[in-house]
Amino acid sequence: MTETLPFQDIAALVRPQLDRLNRELVQDLAPGHREMLPLIEHVGGFRGKQLRPMLTFLSGMAVRGAEHGGVLGDDVVTVAKVVELLHTATLVHDDVLDSASVRRRIPTVNQMAGVEVAVLLGDYIYAKAFHMAVQLHDPAAARWLAETVRVICQGEITQVLHRFDFAWTEPRYFQVIAEKTASLYAAACRLGGHYAAGNHGAGGSEVRLRALEEYGLELGIAFQIVDDCLDLDGDERVVGKSLGTDLSKGKITLPLLYLLQRGPGEAERLRSVLGRQEAEALRRLRSEFALEHAVAYAMDEARRRIAKAQASLSPLPPGPARDALHQLAGYVVTRRL
Amino acid sequence: MTETLPFQDIAALVRPQLDRLNRELVQDLAPGHREMLPLIEHVGGFRGKQLRPMLTFLSGMAVRGAEHGGVLGDDVVTVAKVVELLHTATLVHDDVLDSASVRRRIPTVNQMAGVEVAVLLGDYIYAKAFHMAVQLHDPAAARWLAETVRVICQGEITQVLHRFDFAWTEPRYFQVIAEKTASLYAAACRLGGHYAAGNHGAGGSEVRLRALEEYGLELGIAFQIVDDCLDLDGDERVVGKSLGTDLSKGKITLPLLYLLQRGPGEAERLRSVLGRQEAEALRRLRSEFALEHAVAYAMDEARRRIAKAQASLSPLPPGPARDALHQLAGYVVTRRL
Repeated sequence: MTETLPFQDIAALVRPQLDRLNRELVQDLAPGHREMLPLIEHVGGFRGKQLRPMLTFLSGMAVRGAEHGGVLGDDVVTVAKVVELLHTATLVHDDVLDSASVRRRIPTVNQMAGVEVAVLLGDYIYAKAFHMAVQLHDPAAARWLAETVRVICQGEITQVLHRFDFAWTEPRYFQVIAEKTASLYAAACRLGGHYAAGNHGAGGSEVRLRALEEYGLELGIAFQIVDDCLDLDGDERVVGKSLGTDLSKGKITLPLLYLLQRGPGEAERLRSVLGRQEAEALRRLRSEFALEHAVAYAMDEARRRIAKAQASLSPLPPGPARDALHQLAGYVVTRRL
Repeated sequence: MTETLPFQDIAALVRPQLDRLNRELVQDLAPGHREMLPLIEHVGGFRGKQLRPMLTFLSGMAVRGAEHGGVLGDDVVTVAKVVELLHTATLVHDDVLDSASVRRRIPTVNQMAGVEVAVLLGDYIYAKAFHMAVQLHDPAAARWLAETVRVICQGEITQVLHRFDFAWTEPRYFQVIAEKTASLYAAACRLGGHYAAGNHGAGGSEVRLRALEEYGLELGIAFQIVDDCLDLDGDERVVGKSLGTDLSKGKITLPLLYLLQRGPGEAERLRSVLGRQEAEALRRLRSEFALEHAVAYAMDEARRRIAKAQASLSPLPPGPARDALHQLAGYVVTRRL
């Protein structure tokens, strides 16, 4: 097994399922009022790497293993669609929170149609996702995902309440990113396994589902750490969205915690730098502090999390799907967008 | 049966259930992180007349009728809690949309903790409500309410997209308020009946559930018309929230539609008046147009809807609960807050 399999080759393994998902989502989201159609179509443009549905599909395949065949039932596709819609709803609301104007090189909903429409459209997509989840005969996904969204919001609120809190600690930071980001990855993986196993219990032992959940959690934590690093040293033209906003928002990220821990007096120096206009704050941070060391420190942690995620996969039966999950985890720490 | 039974006497019929609901909601909403507790407690202060849970309980009692006893099971309480939480979530987000600073004489969440926290807290409460709904063994409430929230958002988005649209029509106005306001009343009534009947089918025939749904829908439409009138001629000290904001937001309400229909040229005159600072626009509207006629026209429509709601109750067995629903409908058009 090589670590260098390109992302596209991993995606190819679940291409039929991803294509079906994207085809069906257009139908599923067709609004009752024609006025809403341009909004729904616009949000479709935020589609990214679709890491979460990929994880749901690969988790389903991995749990079934070679002995049960790789064909996934309709329920797994539904779960993947719900996860993707919940993620989309959080993006639409996140852009409101960040007053962001660009996402994936197109205007955000708040930029295009105003804050009111953006708040309501996020709510609309959440409701649509929950409605889809409760159509499943097995209520596991609806229950797990409603709780996941509650946890995501709890993490996000806690983060907002602790902006510019220079007494913030690493354990609390990890808890918040586990809640606001990693919980949905964990759900995507666990529920993919759960619904692929179905009522026949084909490979869906609690040990395997826990393994997938753990994998998703560590991968999600790594993903958020990388996101925090990209906000500091990424290239806006590559990432395709506004960067550097964490600093001006007083968001306490892992690189920032590293800088704060370098010694007494740092908190005061940082406070004097932060809270200014992003470009200015970033320029000063780059010059006054060892930004590259802070980012390197955070990326080390991300790589440790990825190794942990990969190790979590051991209870799953060996095969191409498990290999793909292993490789996909590695991709998270090498991505530049 | 008198039309003048005070609101408190109707509420007394469901007082034990309302007390239980309010006691349990405090427990149910206890957040995982202590930082969130003040926010959750603050939102508890928005509690109003609790018309929706009252309707759920009374609908349950009415469907069971005297022959099955008035005792309601746990499921009806859960449904009432979910409906109340969904309503609370819409209030928190509505205050963001309206940039409102006061609700029920206390600061709105956006005023107290900022727009970011308000958006996230609304999402949090939605998720909590859905999570509660999917704990019910019978998935009817989760399915019906997820669809209801989607419809609420659809109605609200349509309204925002048609601000200052002086070509708006009464049928479209009624459709939008049915969606954004009345759909939750309809759900509160229908689901109260559904879960009170339980698996024994005690009185829960589709005819009776449809009757309750129709009652809730017409009552909700009347409620929104009255709300629109209060925004124009209500007393802020009595209503307890900012008024007159509909005008400056370009919200097309029934009194405004009446004014627009008085003759050609009115749309142009209105356009010149609207879109200004609220107090100024309201003062001009009062002087330039027959505001009282417009409000009287709208209130006539509200009374017609209430009569329709009351007539819908006929398939239900006679008794104190059905009488209370009849009286409660009458209250909606006499309220001043």
